[in-house]
Amino acid sequence: MAEVGQRARIAARALARAETDAKNRALSVIAEAIEAAVPQLKTENARDLEAGRARGLEPAMLDRLELTDVRIASMAEGLRQIVGLADPVGAIEDLKYLPSGIQVGRMRVPLGVIGIIYESRPNVTVDAAALCLKSGNASILRGGSEALHSNQAIAVCIRTGLAAAGLPEDAVQVVETADRAAVGELLRMKDSVDVIVPRGGKSLIERVSRESLIPVIKHLDGVCHVYVDDSAETEMTLTVAVNAKTQRYGTCNTMETLLVCASRAADILPPLAARYAEVGVRLKGCARTREVLPRIEPASEADWHTEYLAPVLSIRVVDGLDEAIDHINTYGSHHTDSILTQDYARARRFLREVDSSSVMVNASTRLADGFEYGLGAEIGISTDKLHARGPVGLEGLTSQKYIVLGDGQVRR
Amino acid sequence: MAEVGQRARIAARALARAETDAKNRALSVIAEAIEAAVPQLKTENARDLEAGRARGLEPAMLDRLELTDVRIASMAEGLRQIVGLADPVGAIEDLKYLPSGIQVGRMRVPLGVIGIIYESRPNVTVDAAALCLKSGNASILRGGSEALHSNQAIAVCIRTGLAAAGLPEDAVQVVETADRAAVGELLRMKDSVDVIVPRGGKSLIERVSRESLIPVIKHLDGVCHVYVDDSAETEMTLTVAVNAKTQRYGTCNTMETLLVCASRAADILPPLAARYAEVGVRLKGCARTREVLPRIEPASEADWHTEYLAPVLSIRVVDGLDEAIDHINTYGSHHTDSILTQDYARARRFLREVDSSSVMVNASTRLADGFEYGLGAEIGISTDKLHARGPVGLEGLTSQKYIVLGDGQVRR
Repeated sequence: MAEVGQRARIAARALARAETDAKNRALSVIAEAIEAAVPQLKTENARDLEAGRARGLEPAMLDRLELTDVRIASMAEGLRQIVGLADPVGAIEDLKYLPSGIQVGRMRVPLGVIGIIYESRPNVTVDAAALCLKSGNASILRGGSEALHSNQAIAVCIRTGLAAAGLPEDAVQVVETADRAAVGELLRMKDSVDVIVPRGGKSLIERVSRESLIPVIKHLDGVCHVYVDDSAETEMTLTVAVNAKTQRYGTCNTMETLLVCASRAADILPPLAARYAEVGVRLKGCARTREVLPRIEPASEADWHTEYLAPVLSIRVVDGLDEAIDHINTYGSHHTDSILTQDYARARRFLREVDSSSVMVNASTRLADGFEYGLGAEIGISTDKLHARGPVGLEGLTSQKYIVLGDGQVRR
Repeated sequence: MAEVGQRARIAARALARAETDAKNRALSVIAEAIEAAVPQLKTENARDLEAGRARGLEPAMLDRLELTDVRIASMAEGLRQIVGLADPVGAIEDLKYLPSGIQVGRMRVPLGVIGIIYESRPNVTVDAAALCLKSGNASILRGGSEALHSNQAIAVCIRTGLAAAGLPEDAVQVVETADRAAVGELLRMKDSVDVIVPRGGKSLIERVSRESLIPVIKHLDGVCHVYVDDSAETEMTLTVAVNAKTQRYGTCNTMETLLVCASRAADILPPLAARYAEVGVRLKGCARTREVLPRIEPASEADWHTEYLAPVLSIRVVDGLDEAIDHINTYGSHHTDSILTQDYARARRFLREVDSSSVMVNASTRLADGFEYGLGAEIGISTDKLHARGPVGLEGLTSQKYIVLGDGQVRR
């Protein structure tokens, strides 16, 4: 692994200088190579699936592992979308004259070497490689051992693209070992890796956060809230609250707790409960919620902390905005939280005071997403505060250096 | 220490919401309190100085420790400058409509709790507290044990200012123990501290980087270069090269290695060596340098890595731009590097390809500084790439969250 790191560091220098055209050419050729390699990709993937079944992998994991025609086509499509995104590298911001006569600005530069640690989905290999490449970073990709053959087949396509564009082969390295210790080693390679991005379940992300000596861009939990304010519009509330919970259950930006202002509990909760009942969402509530919806289960203290990732929703009636903000900042995971209101001052306070990576007014938490935010693509969502917060796109994989233009200025 | 962290976390929430007026009032009252407390500050400082002399502290350390009338006045002046800076918190950038009809932008928010670990200078207590306060962050200040009484006297003034502005007393906590273990404990308080800023000598910064489980904003070395290109103007070269080395010797942005294009060695090095000789700078050179300046010492491989912080300069003759960039990216510390040139294309390449926190054309490396860059004040200079790079001012002590404004939009 140490050698992998050194090779990545060398490749990163060349990649930082690479022109946009070369990076786009590599991405386009990778897309073509993937489309031309459908039979090989499926053959190698079948080996992984067979081994997975033999090892007794869960059906959900086998599903994530499988490369279908549609999924392969969508990998190629994803690459072409990244070709279409603006290259962030070299962009100069805020270049201005200062009293001494120098011009000072900031130029966007790649981070250097990015380590991606992920689980069964082979499409992450292509997505992550493409985002790192476009943002001028070398990448070291360490996928799950259960996807080893699929990932190696994808790696062949990636190498074809890099070679066609004259970019160093080591710009993207797909780690070829199933040895679990390789992850631990990668997490300690401070000198050759600049940032680690884990993608996968909570236990993976926890392990990476705990062991890494390298900064990690991550989010652990998505305990997201919608707060129905006193002044919320009824129809909008029903639409948004249903969408935020039910549009998809397993995603990090799905609502897990609904907070309702006491003045609206009686008129909002019964019709909302009826809509949830239609789609089979199980409700749990605080004592005040159960005064209005007596048949639902009681919510425990643990429920307020829980990311169900399932058709389950906890509901709490609060006195008003202060209690709602306090609940969110205390029990939430600083991911995405939304207020439904027509009150200007309360919207303004919610935006300022809720300490989450995305804070919304009158919108579904499910909109917290790189595509919806216009970033084009995302490598993940960060609930950390340092460096990147919220959906992380190409810009989140870059840094800025100062540039100074003078004509002989010195320090007095 | 755990309690200190919990109190800081609670204070941070109040501070994040604090209005600019309240923060400015606190800073102004701290300045007044410091001016009114000159006798007490000097009495307490005298206790530290006496104890320091008894412990045999070096004269340089005793000098840094001393609070003179001028230094106390400049602490108050520094506070008033920070009052005058724009409040970064709450500023919204890039708010724009997206196809779904939502508006998405980013709002600047405090990082939360900042731990500052520093050595003998008591003025850091005021500077760091003020920058953290203005940027809406709670701070935990852990100064050197040799400055304990001075720092506690300053802490009294800080508490006066916080109280006058109705801000929580725990917004700034000056750790009251001389116990060295307190630093280790602070560095492990992941849940209550968001970022650590070490200020002091290299051994302190190395220790903090090694032990911290919390992200650190730091720079270790300042091995800065000036490259004299084939097309550099002679008079400008002499002026800038002398300023970059001699304007101050002990600072991180002082030039430590001069690179000279082979075509200019014969005409530039003799007059430059004469100027350095006038002010007593000792020169060391590579073999090609010593063909022109035969009397100077040879430079060893180790010299190219060395931050002298003294009137010593290493000089290397290179074939041209490629070799210069390669030398800087290999031996430099990614701090500040400058090219002297009149060639447009080479200036452009140098700006793009040198991987340092500040990259300059025709300017002295000594200009790499928060005040010179218009940041108003700096808490330090970062040579890291994640989060903040280069001089770190108020903005570097903040993060950005996404804000979304809608009128009922949902995910399709």
